[in-house]
Amino acid sequence: MPMPSSMRPGTGALPIDGSFAVALEGYREPRIDRAVQRFLHDLSRVTGIPIRNQIVNHANATLLVRAEHASKPIQDVSEDEGYTLGVSASGATLTAPNPLGIMHGLQTFLQLVEVTPGGFAAPTVHIEDSPRFPWRGLTIDVSRHFISVNTLKRNIDGMAAVKMNVLHLHLSDDQGFRIASGQFPKLVEMGSDGQYYSKAEMRDLIEYARDRGIRVVPEFDMPGHSTSWFVGYPDLASGPGPYQIERRWGIFDPAMDPSREQTYKFLDKFIGEMADIFPDHYFHIGGDEVNGKQWDANPKIREFMRVHNLKNNQELQQYFTLRVQKIVSRHHKIMVGWDEILAPGMPKDSVIQSWRGQDSLAAAAKQGYSGILSSGYYLDAMAPAKKYYSVDPMSNADAALNVDQQKRILGGEACMWAEFITDDNIDSRIWPRAAAISERLWSAPEVQDVNSMYIRLTATSRYLELLGLRHRSNVRLMLSRMAGTDNIAALLTLADVAEPASLQVREEEAEKAGGIQTSDTPLNRMVDAVLPESVVAQRFSQDVDQFVGSNFQDTKVKSDIRALLLAWRDNDNELRPLLQNSFLLKELSPVSQTLSSLAGAGLQALDYIGKGERGSDSWHKEQIAIFQQTEKPAADLFLAVSPAVQKLVEASTTSGK
Amino acid sequence: MPMPSSMRPGTGALPIDGSFAVALEGYREPRIDRAVQRFLHDLSRVTGIPIRNQIVNHANATLLVRAEHASKPIQDVSEDEGYTLGVSASGATLTAPNPLGIMHGLQTFLQLVEVTPGGFAAPTVHIEDSPRFPWRGLTIDVSRHFISVNTLKRNIDGMAAVKMNVLHLHLSDDQGFRIASGQFPKLVEMGSDGQYYSKAEMRDLIEYARDRGIRVVPEFDMPGHSTSWFVGYPDLASGPGPYQIERRWGIFDPAMDPSREQTYKFLDKFIGEMADIFPDHYFHIGGDEVNGKQWDANPKIREFMRVHNLKNNQELQQYFTLRVQKIVSRHHKIMVGWDEILAPGMPKDSVIQSWRGQDSLAAAAKQGYSGILSSGYYLDAMAPAKKYYSVDPMSNADAALNVDQQKRILGGEACMWAEFITDDNIDSRIWPRAAAISERLWSAPEVQDVNSMYIRLTATSRYLELLGLRHRSNVRLMLSRMAGTDNIAALLTLADVAEPASLQVREEEAEKAGGIQTSDTPLNRMVDAVLPESVVAQRFSQDVDQFVGSNFQDTKVKSDIRALLLAWRDNDNELRPLLQNSFLLKELSPVSQTLSSLAGAGLQALDYIGKGERGSDSWHKEQIAIFQQTEKPAADLFLAVSPAVQKLVEASTTSGK
Repeated sequence: MPMPSSMRPGTGALPIDGSFAVALEGYREPRIDRAVQRFLHDLSRVTGIPIRNQIVNHANATLLVRAEHASKPIQDVSEDEGYTLGVSASGATLTAPNPLGIMHGLQTFLQLVEVTPGGFAAPTVHIEDSPRFPWRGLTIDVSRHFISVNTLKRNIDGMAAVKMNVLHLHLSDDQGFRIASGQFPKLVEMGSDGQYYSKAEMRDLIEYARDRGIRVVPEFDMPGHSTSWFVGYPDLASGPGPYQIERRWGIFDPAMDPSREQTYKFLDKFIGEMADIFPDHYFHIGGDEVNGKQWDANPKIREFMRVHNLKNNQELQQYFTLRVQKIVSRHHKIMVGWDEILAPGMPKDSVIQSWRGQDSLAAAAKQGYSGILSSGYYLDAMAPAKKYYSVDPMSNADAALNVDQQKRILGGEACMWAEFITDDNIDSRIWPRAAAISERLWSAPEVQDVNSMYIRLTATSRYLELLGLRHRSNVRLMLSRMAGTDNIAALLTLADVAEPASLQVREEEAEKAGGIQTSDTPLNRMVDAVLPESVVAQRFSQDVDQFVGSNFQDTKVKSDIRALLLAWRDNDNELRPLLQNSFLLKELSPVSQTLSSLAGAGLQALDYIGKGERGSDSWHKEQIAIFQQTEKPAADLFLAVSPAVQKLVEASTTSGK
Repeated sequence: MPMPSSMRPGTGALPIDGSFAVALEGYREPRIDRAVQRFLHDLSRVTGIPIRNQIVNHANATLLVRAEHASKPIQDVSEDEGYTLGVSASGATLTAPNPLGIMHGLQTFLQLVEVTPGGFAAPTVHIEDSPRFPWRGLTIDVSRHFISVNTLKRNIDGMAAVKMNVLHLHLSDDQGFRIASGQFPKLVEMGSDGQYYSKAEMRDLIEYARDRGIRVVPEFDMPGHSTSWFVGYPDLASGPGPYQIERRWGIFDPAMDPSREQTYKFLDKFIGEMADIFPDHYFHIGGDEVNGKQWDANPKIREFMRVHNLKNNQELQQYFTLRVQKIVSRHHKIMVGWDEILAPGMPKDSVIQSWRGQDSLAAAAKQGYSGILSSGYYLDAMAPAKKYYSVDPMSNADAALNVDQQKRILGGEACMWAEFITDDNIDSRIWPRAAAISERLWSAPEVQDVNSMYIRLTATSRYLELLGLRHRSNVRLMLSRMAGTDNIAALLTLADVAEPASLQVREEEAEKAGGIQTSDTPLNRMVDAVLPESVVAQRFSQDVDQFVGSNFQDTKVKSDIRALLLAWRDNDNELRPLLQNSFLLKELSPVSQTLSSLAGAGLQALDYIGKGERGSDSWHKEQIAIFQQTEKPAADLFLAVSPAVQKLVEASTTSGK
């Protein structure tokens, strides 16, 4: 995963053992050597076989690697990332125009390795592969919650494993400024709570990413989403200070003052400094969600608008954007921004990252602008992988573009907004689901089989944990932390069928409860721990489908369903003592009871089915009430098995006497 | 854990929330600031509460920290590591003579934090604490298998959490030389398979340890266990070369040539270089297990012995040791070595690390030498924690020493020899068991309650995983790697009741099978993954004791026992399909069948007990055969539930009619 462009399986397999060795031919650079060393190390990790990191020089190595030439000094969107990988029973050959293809091919090889009755092996295959889109990114918001360098590196490893090639760091927002500036030290001294990356750390991270074929694009959101700048530099703002770091989530009034020359002088120095740290050709200036209130309230700004014939705040932002674009361009960067940056007269090389959707991108493409899609790829929406998988950058209005315009659709970026993520749970919010998005962006548009996707996603999930990601192991840790004990079997049973509410629902729920979620709110509840997509619920749903589809004849699957329902029904009793011991578990009591009720409904349905009877209308109505209850979140959780139980109940009422 | 010297509980508790802040008074240095930052970060990790890393300056902080003065520039055995920690419902105070006590006290505070029905809190308590022994170490053998820097750092975190204060790195042995020398580059170029620490990495590791109150003592084993030196520098050896890195385990012939002045010139330069990297006052020269064969076979050496009136190889080694001691001393270090280094005329400040036991230490102490105990603390023996816990440095002959002599017993070191460990499983071999050894070395000798130890060990285990150790999460990863799938419930059931054979038994078994274990042997089998001490078996054994002790009247525990036995009996059927899919699982088939048979025996015994009947003699004999079978390893595993099942069967045959 992602599925290669072309794959021709053969017969037999290449055994993987301790004698595995790689030979390098053709173009060579230290980055290739390091990639091969890493590959051998990872091969050792996924097999447990000690493989001494040897790059041998003769052609009878197990794997022959040949690159033709260098990639660009600074990786860009025009790179040829293709590769050819041939695996036979006696050896393998990986060729690519440049190191980027070599890296992708090595990842493909690693994914081929499997345990078999005879040993570890890679099946015989011939693969020709190259990506559909050149921009396959992941936005990580490190402002709303700071994410440590180690966690970022771990996630870069994950990106490389599934062939994503852009890490977009959302480095500033109202809630925090996350990179040290020598020119403007107060940005982090006053705007970060001490949580930021030093320049050295960022340079190291960029090198780390480059070594894995991944570009790092910095985003500094402006003119809005910028409170954290103003804590140290209030003169930048359009309203009077002083400012505090914003602790709440949402859209806030503070915005840069587009009417003062000082603003552009500041940004010129700042962008110049950052342009030196981030070698990537692209520089993201955000530009989203300016509510304009500070502009409206500032007479000098209104006077400025009048003098410059700017009719409204949109035009004022366009003025600002064009000024900033010139600065970005002077520092030899191409500007990227969210939909709102689009302005008449903006240079055509600018790139729109769209949270609005394909129609917005199509409109930009028609005007000559390039675009990347993020609408539909928001991981904080907690949608199932299949939903992200179904979103194609080239669908809707983009599908109607002409060939030249279509070329301007560069790809997409998954977005990990950080209102509800920390180092503890970021892995489980990104992985393995981002792999489905990566496949959409890498593989042919015809690759659409959702079942195949899920099977491969499960394998990818396991593989990613072997590489060091924590998306599953951290769930257990968080549950054990909540419970204050290791005896969490009953808690796990509940956690395995619960899914977290989306960012939006959580905020609505908090508001209803009269509370408010802030960056001070601990993210140590069940909703923060459980996986976005319940694997148990998925399997249960398949079982129910099969049982109903078999016209209730499949007794093996019936017994599996029954066993699960019994466990869920009885789990509440098991769980209750635990719930008393921890304030973090109290809120789960109704969720656990509902699971018990749901399971009871399912068991009763099974009984009716077994007896060939039909449940009474009144019984049916009672059950419907339970299902309706599960459509609302409780403790910000949804019981993901509810729809399948409902299907069982419906089936029981439409059959029998 | 370890249990403090004195602990006076109060009533109430100090709530832990996001407002937690620390004030620093008294002596201050950057190391204390970093320790407090780490403490706040860890507090955040164990609670999930965001705590901004703030050190406040006023006295109404949650925790007041006061050190009196600096510790020694280079930490040594005479440091006062004590501290006083008072926790009240409104705040806490930690005082200590120096930063070392502060670090220990912060760890104690973290261990106090618990989840309660009302929130996270630290119970009210007054603790006065200081260690019984000043040398509480962990030897990690990084030669036989290389252990990465990250893994070492993780384990240093674990050591700090349980107040161990010496990391002893066994840096060279026949199987590998693990640190780069500028003077003698071929040591790692030819003797390490490319797996070694650079000087910069080692300096960083030492700083990391020092920041946590942990000394790093380097060991370079000589004159034996030294094949890896000779690959690059064959002239150092007593026999003709050339040499290869040794791949087997055991005691080998190659030894340094004590008769050549060149040997001492080499060692002088080398030790000088290393003395510069390792600031610790102590320098370990190994000295163990020289078989003398190369010396016997070398006429020049025999002539040298004659000329110098050295009567045998022991005296020759003593000559060598005294020469090396002078070199070590010239570089301002105190020599440490294994029992064998003891030689007439050796300076009294030398330290003996004893693999032979307390009697050997007592003999040395009587001669004026200091000693540390490692006999009984070998983690590769895979003994249960209670066994390590029962070993006291001051027992046996040491107990009979006079007061001055007893002062020479400095403490002990747990030893993690690395024939069968890698980055994958080192955490689970060291943790949580090393905490039991640490408690023996820190706490009063009267602290002996094994049940209390196990309860606290379980809590410590959970805590260590929250801090980042992988002793439990890696088990699951390794099982999933073996199986090639995530559906490993049945495999886990087996793994949970299986314990690994010791190093010695594994080698015997390999020999019996006509095979040989080497450093090329993959450590990816079940025996490499399972925990040294089965928690499930422990609980089952307690249940059986309780059931038998209740004269079979405790029906709740009877039903728990029955449920487990049923699961084990049926597990073989569940597991069988998995075993077919992976060559790594095939060997488990007989183990799984034996578990099934054991469970069958237990169930039959329960039946007899339930009916008030007594099993026939022939039935009893059949069951005995099963138990006997489990005394031998299968697939290098032992079924840890066997003794408890046997107890159940015995109970059933002595009761009833």
